[in-house]
Amino acid sequence: MSANEPLTAVAARELLAVALEEARAGLAEGGIPIGAALFHRDGTLLGRGHNRRVQDDDASTHAETAAFRNAGRRRHYVDCVMVTTLSPCWYCSGLIRQFQIGTVVVGETENFVGGHDWVAAHGTEVIILDDPACTELLGRFIAGHPELWYEDIGL
Amino acid sequence: MSANEPLTAVAARELLAVALEEARAGLAEGGIPIGAALFHRDGTLLGRGHNRRVQDDDASTHAETAAFRNAGRRRHYVDCVMVTTLSPCWYCSGLIRQFQIGTVVVGETENFVGGHDWVAAHGTEVIILDDPACTELLGRFIAGHPELWYEDIGL
Repeated sequence: MSANEPLTAVAARELLAVALEEARAGLAEGGIPIGAALFHRDGTLLGRGHNRRVQDDDASTHAETAAFRNAGRRRHYVDCVMVTTLSPCWYCSGLIRQFQIGTVVVGETENFVGGHDWVAAHGTEVIILDDPACTELLGRFIAGHPELWYEDIGL
Repeated sequence: MSANEPLTAVAARELLAVALEEARAGLAEGGIPIGAALFHRDGTLLGRGHNRRVQDDDASTHAETAAFRNAGRRRHYVDCVMVTTLSPCWYCSGLIRQFQIGTVVVGETENFVGGHDWVAAHGTEVIILDDPACTELLGRFIAGHPELWYEDIGL
């Protein structure tokens, strides 16, 4: 992808595949299946990760914060793309806003709607893919483990 | 402090002392001196921590997220108080909103203003203390290490 053009849906779907791999890895570990990855706009993978509430008893590690941490320290994020299997919660939306991440690719918004409209209003390009695999993976998990899901979003 | 009454300024200053200890511990490690702690409203300390960008090369560990992580998994936060030496950035404000933390005590708002008004508008009790020790500690650090400060807030 070019550094100067909007991300195409085709390119966004390629990035989403990495986030979905992360979500499935989380599920295989017994965790909440939400995955994310941070890319440079040139396509370089900077960091990837998944929700680790169950695995590490860590309430602070959502998929997006895991990918962000695993990308290490950076001076700027305007040239970066955060791809996540689910609409980012307010915590992760705050991360996106504070660090001015240039683009966010959202796998699905059916199981949950967080702050993707809010980050868009503050200048982040937001691409929503309505990906059935993302929706089904998390939807099935929520149906089977509602207590974990509601704990993870603080409701 | 009672579970049913607003936090008094005296009680808030007692909690702030713990966050300030954390900020000073971070400075002693060569890190960015911002500290936080999460308490139950009954005064029980649940978790405390400080910014660890420099120490761990971890961009995701702000003071508030460190305190939140160190408090472990909880089902609800409405009965909790997050105390932080600095106005919470959007990332940490998003954490407060998503998990509906009941009260936030802010040490100072001179060096930085994040989302404390926003979380107040969404139902969190916000107490601003204008504490000179917090302001001086971070202000001196910013003057000496502006590159670390601007990296930490993504500007």
